[in-house]
Amino acid sequence: MPFVLMLRPRSGAQQWIAREEYRLEPSVPVFEFTDSYGNLCQRLVAPAGVFTVSTSADVMTADHVDHGFGAPFVEIQNLPDPVLSYLLPSRYCESDRFHQMAAEITAGQQLGYDQVAAIVTWLRSAIRYCPGSSDAPVSAAEVNSRQVGVCRDLAHLGIALCRSISIPARMVVGYLYGLEPMDLHAWFEAYVGGRWYSFDATQSTRTGGYVAVGYGRDAADVAVYNQFGPAVYPTAQIVRVDHIRG
Amino acid sequence: MPFVLMLRPRSGAQQWIAREEYRLEPSVPVFEFTDSYGNLCQRLVAPAGVFTVSTSADVMTADHVDHGFGAPFVEIQNLPDPVLSYLLPSRYCESDRFHQMAAEITAGQQLGYDQVAAIVTWLRSAIRYCPGSSDAPVSAAEVNSRQVGVCRDLAHLGIALCRSISIPARMVVGYLYGLEPMDLHAWFEAYVGGRWYSFDATQSTRTGGYVAVGYGRDAADVAVYNQFGPAVYPTAQIVRVDHIRG
Amino acid sequence: MPFVLMLRPRSGAQQWIAREEYRLEPSVPVFEFTDSYGNLCQRLVAPAGVFTVSTSADVMTADHVDHGFGAPFVEIQNLPDPVLSYLLPSRYCESDRFHQMAAEITAGQQLGYDQVAAIVTWLRSAIRYCPGSSDAPVSAAEVNSRQVGVCRDLAHLGIALCRSISIPARMVVGYLYGLEPMDLHAWFEAYVGGRWYSFDATQSTRTGGYVAVGYGRDAADVAVYNQFGPAVYPTAQIVRVDHIRG
Amino acid sequence: MPFVLMLRPRSGAQQWIAREEYRLEPSVPVFEFTDSYGNLCQRLVAPAGVFTVSTSADVMTADHVDHGFGAPFVEIQNLPDPVLSYLLPSRYCESDRFHQMAAEITAGQQLGYDQVAAIVTWLRSAIRYCPGSSDAPVSAAEVNSRQVGVCRDLAHLGIALCRSISIPARMVVGYLYGLEPMDLHAWFEAYVGGRWYSFDATQSTRTGGYVAVGYGRDAADVAVYNQFGPAVYPTAQIVRVDHIRG
Repeated sequence: MPFVLMLRPRSGAQQWIAREEYRLEPSVPVFEFTDSYGNLCQRLVAPAGVFTVSTSADVMTADHVDHGFGAPFVEIQNLPDPVLSYLLPSRYCESDRFHQMAAEITAGQQLGYDQVAAIVTWLRSAIRYCPGSSDAPVSAAEVNSRQVGVCRDLAHLGIALCRSISIPARMVVGYLYGLEPMDLHAWFEAYVGGRWYSFDATQSTRTGGYVAVGYGRDAADVAVYNQFGPAVYPTAQIVRVDHIRG
Repeated sequence: MPFVLMLRPRSGAQQWIAREEYRLEPSVPVFEFTDSYGNLCQRLVAPAGVFTVSTSADVMTADHVDHGFGAPFVEIQNLPDPVLSYLLPSRYCESDRFHQMAAEITAGQQLGYDQVAAIVTWLRSAIRYCPGSSDAPVSAAEVNSRQVGVCRDLAHLGIALCRSISIPARMVVGYLYGLEPMDLHAWFEAYVGGRWYSFDATQSTRTGGYVAVGYGRDAADVAVYNQFGPAVYPTAQIVRVDHIRG
Repeated sequence: MPFVLMLRPRSGAQQWIAREEYRLEPSVPVFEFTDSYGNLCQRLVAPAGVFTVSTSADVMTADHVDHGFGAPFVEIQNLPDPVLSYLLPSRYCESDRFHQMAAEITAGQQLGYDQVAAIVTWLRSAIRYCPGSSDAPVSAAEVNSRQVGVCRDLAHLGIALCRSISIPARMVVGYLYGLEPMDLHAWFEAYVGGRWYSFDATQSTRTGGYVAVGYGRDAADVAVYNQFGPAVYPTAQIVRVDHIRG
Repeated sequence: MPFVLMLRPRSGAQQWIAREEYRLEPSVPVFEFTDSYGNLCQRLVAPAGVFTVSTSADVMTADHVDHGFGAPFVEIQNLPDPVLSYLLPSRYCESDRFHQMAAEITAGQQLGYDQVAAIVTWLRSAIRYCPGSSDAPVSAAEVNSRQVGVCRDLAHLGIALCRSISIPARMVVGYLYGLEPMDLHAWFEAYVGGRWYSFDATQSTRTGGYVAVGYGRDAADVAVYNQFGPAVYPTAQIVRVDHIRG
């Protein structure tokens, strides 16, 4: 069974990977490549029988999250080339359908960061965050109609709303210290004021402790593991995030 | 009004661009970049008022289309890294929903090219090709339910079916000599036997004369023009393809 | 005989390609790719016998060249990732050997654009520009010792001097309207003040009319044609640049 | 003092990174990017005073090295696009000057792997391997004239000879278990028979235990650390490679 994994977080804006460890049981050859979003991806073929992937990492991460109230909207003609693709609709973010709704949610806001902040505020009030409530990913339109979702769903709807008003937005998958119940986590970033800012509609207060593992247009691009082929491989997943003193 | 255009075909497998011409009225600055699919994209800001983009090209193109009956399925672990992303679901190709249907359509076929050929045969019989029947792009699931579509729609459904059985597939937008009525055209390619083969469910016999302009995961990635921003710009488009003696 | 050509200029900062034309006699298949510098490269195999490549293009180009006196040095930690490689020594630009000399030439200058301007002034006085004086490319160290060179040589020495004081610099190959005698031309760009500025030590006054065809670290990366293989193919080359009314 | 480091080996053809650890004393922000050769590069600004970077990794590596006697020369027109740049001359590999010499060294050999093997045999006999004999990198022409060199020098000359007969070749920097005296190591790879094979003229018998950290055209591209700026930072480096039971 061929797999593409996305196991290795990268050092970047607010995180530094101090130690990483990967164990495959049984051991198989692994080939790594960098995808078009900059993610480190590992290709392998899982053998028949039980196959276990264990990873652990020590990551130094910011203990707060940058805010950017007032950061201005970037005119499309001034966006860096690689950012443009984050304006397009994608599998789970049908931004082509949300323009009217986003215009209403962000009415009266200063163009840019404050529009995204209004979208997040709206997500918190309109979509009930219910960890564990979905299995397969569903799209932003479906999330909007269900009015309930997991972290990934809230991110998808937030991304679709941002893109629909020409603010580039992307999915982030990773870990959050203190998340209850602990699991993989997903949030999103929006490009305003000349940089990416992160947003998380599942947390009413944000206190840092985020570890980003993968970036993409939506969950179709950023899967911690992707298995291919007709048969479905039964999987289980255990996530733990501990605090290490600086 | 900012635009991203995809005007310049590239020389490649079965085409050679001998002459190109581009006129903008009025003239404005243009910045070109290559996107992650290898397309040449032109960024510009259209002025207020009437704005006209005229292009023409002389292209030497193959007078037949390669067939590859018997070309084998490529195991996922053997796909080149950049081809992997064409297995993922995308905005208009919800391949995650079509596995069962694709398995039935391709039952009994040899794995690889012959499966794709069976999908194209099925598309011709099950989806009525009706040029001019849709405006905004719709997704493969919607096309499958409507049972009618334009070239782009048939391509989207073909792509979704291929990916659902682990055959990489991508959208192509361009021109076809002799198309009736003449318009921009769309078809798709599938990766089997170690290369991309092109497929077009709208043509019962294929005699060459294709000019590929852009490639992508689906119509969200490959737009001959993308306009951004809240207001909608009224557009008109005229396409003509003439035969030049070799 | 396999060739890699770099025939297609790209629309960009100060140029817009309005028409291009390419003729190969006899006609052979051509495959295009984009190299790591963003250049459009054409691969082909020239047949035995006479083989002719003719290109022509209408290009709208700026009628002046941007100056940036006072544009500041960009601290290395603030350079964009892709710009970093233009700090490294390369085949014909042994920047690792020029630090002392560059420090003297730029002594007293404000860090950034003015340092590069001082380097260009020095090149004009110290290296005699002698079109047609060299065949195979020689390196900056050799140019510095010969004290005479073609456009490419002056560019190589200018690049080596810039890089040696941590200013990213790159080679440009293309055309210049009014060049005497007419030929392919080469100049260089330096990254200061957050953008690339162009410099040309062969022209005492610069009045625009530049058409950039290829970019790279030095002439090893940017050849309008590269032929490979043991035998040498005798070549001739004719260049003409005419003025078209706006 | 800004640095670009290349600390993180990647999982690939014959190695799997099971554990990595990185410590910076004092701790500073680190930003990672992937360069055009696929290397993971870390950017940081070292503070004034003593600054220590410690890394350790557990790597599963092949216990033998692939040989490919008889693997054929790949015609240039059949090389993958990204491999083409490894045919070009580079800072320390003036392949444009070695054609005659390479033709003599490889006379009578089957085109491809066997030519590279003949080059390595020649290197072992003609250039005395003398670890610790050079400081700053010198170019292949200089190595050929000195007839003595460190691992990097032998690699540079091997690469220049390969490229001069149209065999793509690249530099590898990393570690070798059992190297005497222990230090960073360098070797090279040549592209024949449709894949990269590794060669090391410093070892008469090759028994595996290689850990590749970085790839590039030559030592200018692949530095485990690059410091930029006028002042020279005094550095010391300690390398240890231990064997861990499988």
